[in-house]
Amino acid sequence: MSTSFTMIGGEGPNSYREHSKYQGALVIAAKEKINEAISTKLDIDFTSNLVNIADFGCSSGPNTFTAVQTLIDAVENKYKKESNIEGIEFQVFFNDSSNNDFNTLFKTLPPARLYFASGVPGSFFGRVLPKNSLHVGVSSYSLHFVSKVPKEIKDRDSLVWNKDIHCSGSSKEVVKLYLGQYKIDVGSFLTARAQELVSGGLLLLLGSCRPNGVKMFETVEGMMIDFIGSSLNEIANQGLIDQQKLDTFKLPIYAPNVDELKQIIEDNKCFTIEAFEKISHAKGEYPLDPEYLTSAFKVTVGGSVASLFGQDAMEKTYELVKEKTQEMLPQIAKAKPGMQYLIVLRRN
Amino acid sequence: MSTSFTMIGGEGPNSYREHSKYQGALVIAAKEKINEAISTKLDIDFTSNLVNIADFGCSSGPNTFTAVQTLIDAVENKYKKESNIEGIEFQVFFNDSSNNDFNTLFKTLPPARLYFASGVPGSFFGRVLPKNSLHVGVSSYSLHFVSKVPKEIKDRDSLVWNKDIHCSGSSKEVVKLYLGQYKIDVGSFLTARAQELVSGGLLLLLGSCRPNGVKMFETVEGMMIDFIGSSLNEIANQGLIDQQKLDTFKLPIYAPNVDELKQIIEDNKCFTIEAFEKISHAKGEYPLDPEYLTSAFKVTVGGSVASLFGQDAMEKTYELVKEKTQEMLPQIAKAKPGMQYLIVLRRN
Repeated sequence: MSTSFTMIGGEGPNSYREHSKYQGALVIAAKEKINEAISTKLDIDFTSNLVNIADFGCSSGPNTFTAVQTLIDAVENKYKKESNIEGIEFQVFFNDSSNNDFNTLFKTLPPARLYFASGVPGSFFGRVLPKNSLHVGVSSYSLHFVSKVPKEIKDRDSLVWNKDIHCSGSSKEVVKLYLGQYKIDVGSFLTARAQELVSGGLLLLLGSCRPNGVKMFETVEGMMIDFIGSSLNEIANQGLIDQQKLDTFKLPIYAPNVDELKQIIEDNKCFTIEAFEKISHAKGEYPLDPEYLTSAFKVTVGGSVASLFGQDAMEKTYELVKEKTQEMLPQIAKAKPGMQYLIVLRRN
Repeated sequence: MSTSFTMIGGEGPNSYREHSKYQGALVIAAKEKINEAISTKLDIDFTSNLVNIADFGCSSGPNTFTAVQTLIDAVENKYKKESNIEGIEFQVFFNDSSNNDFNTLFKTLPPARLYFASGVPGSFFGRVLPKNSLHVGVSSYSLHFVSKVPKEIKDRDSLVWNKDIHCSGSSKEVVKLYLGQYKIDVGSFLTARAQELVSGGLLLLLGSCRPNGVKMFETVEGMMIDFIGSSLNEIANQGLIDQQKLDTFKLPIYAPNVDELKQIIEDNKCFTIEAFEKISHAKGEYPLDPEYLTSAFKVTVGGSVASLFGQDAMEKTYELVKEKTQEMLPQIAKAKPGMQYLIVLRRN
């Protein structure tokens, strides 16, 4: 959702579309649990014959189509069991930043879809839909962004300046600042969704977080981001990129642990946590393959590196990242696993 | 709405955006009449606090922003007078074909807008919104398209093959076939809107048609299209484009006269015609300027010429069109004026 953190579009081997298969697998793995949640926890009035579904942070497809179809199937099943009214209609709102490629999203909509599709441009940290207009919302791998990196962290002269590009191995103060911003942002996200959802509506959150007690630098993600950071430092030492620019380059992401995430939801007070589950799936962990790992983190972080330091510097950086990944494979093999989650929230 | 009839995007002097100022002026000229129609004819339940507005055939802006803001202002005025409830919200659905440039539309949305914006991809000849979900719809200069040109007209071996690229000077049979398709398409448009609109909701149609008794070839539009047709024929005679391809090239447009348009609406039976008014405005007629005229018809027809015959042939064609326009200026000066209309339809 942040302009400084751009996914690589298109269809190539380094594209988001390719790597997002990893993310799509989570929806499929969580399908039964989603069905169960909608069947037992969704509590809405079907008499209007219209069910509104939204995906917050939809990107340009195709995972979002799998996600919304899963929701529609589940709602339809529930509806058929409980209602005699014929002719329920579904309207799907695909939301993402106005920088998202909605043209591609619209051109690749499933031709046989049985719902009315619409794209909703705008930051999901604020309101994007009318009050009480939404029945079921979903958001996949979107809540690991912060809307901005706290400025003290980017300021070389500040006491809490973060020498790394992320808080994976940083001081407690830096982590605290990142978490503070994360609380504000996810709080804003939940407050906006709470206004949009009808009472009894559901918000499903899919993504990855850290199990309690696991530090960022102990995970594959943390290690890979550290390799990118140290590679950028080497490139800067060679004079190929501007050191001052690099000093202010901090990734606008935060991976919360389970307790942090739960606490933010509870503090918001608008939702009941109906489920907070670990989802295991075949593609849940990264393969121990330097090529794959480098490519995966090129897709997610490479765009912002390229836009700040240029395409050449980005390519050179990722050559170094691949070397480091190769060298450090034994350490990566011992990384602590992250956790893929499904959170089911019911609007009070 | 047809892929063979493509507007030229972007910002240049030949862009749709530039020439669409002409179309934007109509909404502004019709503003008072739109206010009056909404104030006296809109009959909806405001208790849900949500008013849904749609523009069918919105293109990529900016005219659509003027149009929807005009509707919102009018509804808000009415609402303030009649209701004590605070906090009405507006949701705007911008509809056009999935080939439309929604990315540009979304990036140029008015930053200070007080409505929730969404883009709805899909042909407006069919349903694009849920049943009973729309309060006020508008469509500007969209109802002069047909979804397809009847195949007999395109078939060189058919008795009703049309030698021209349009029916401006054609036989009665050709006109009848065009009108037949037009009736089907506008009928489908109205039937779809009738399902989407709530009872008492309004559909506003803006555009241009022929006054009764005026033939297409007597209008500036008809003359210009004839110049394009004869220029293409000359280019084909020079062997620069394929004659067989040209034989099947027919514009998917039809300009109805007032009675034809009224009849289609009455036959549909879902709407009451609350107003059918001629709107006069300063930009209502074309200036007698070969440069302007050529450019205006390059924007609307040039895209489909270029996509079928190539950019070079298109440029050569329009050089000839400009020469013909220059030569025929005295005749153009005597052209019969078209009619800019505002039609207000209330869903029964």
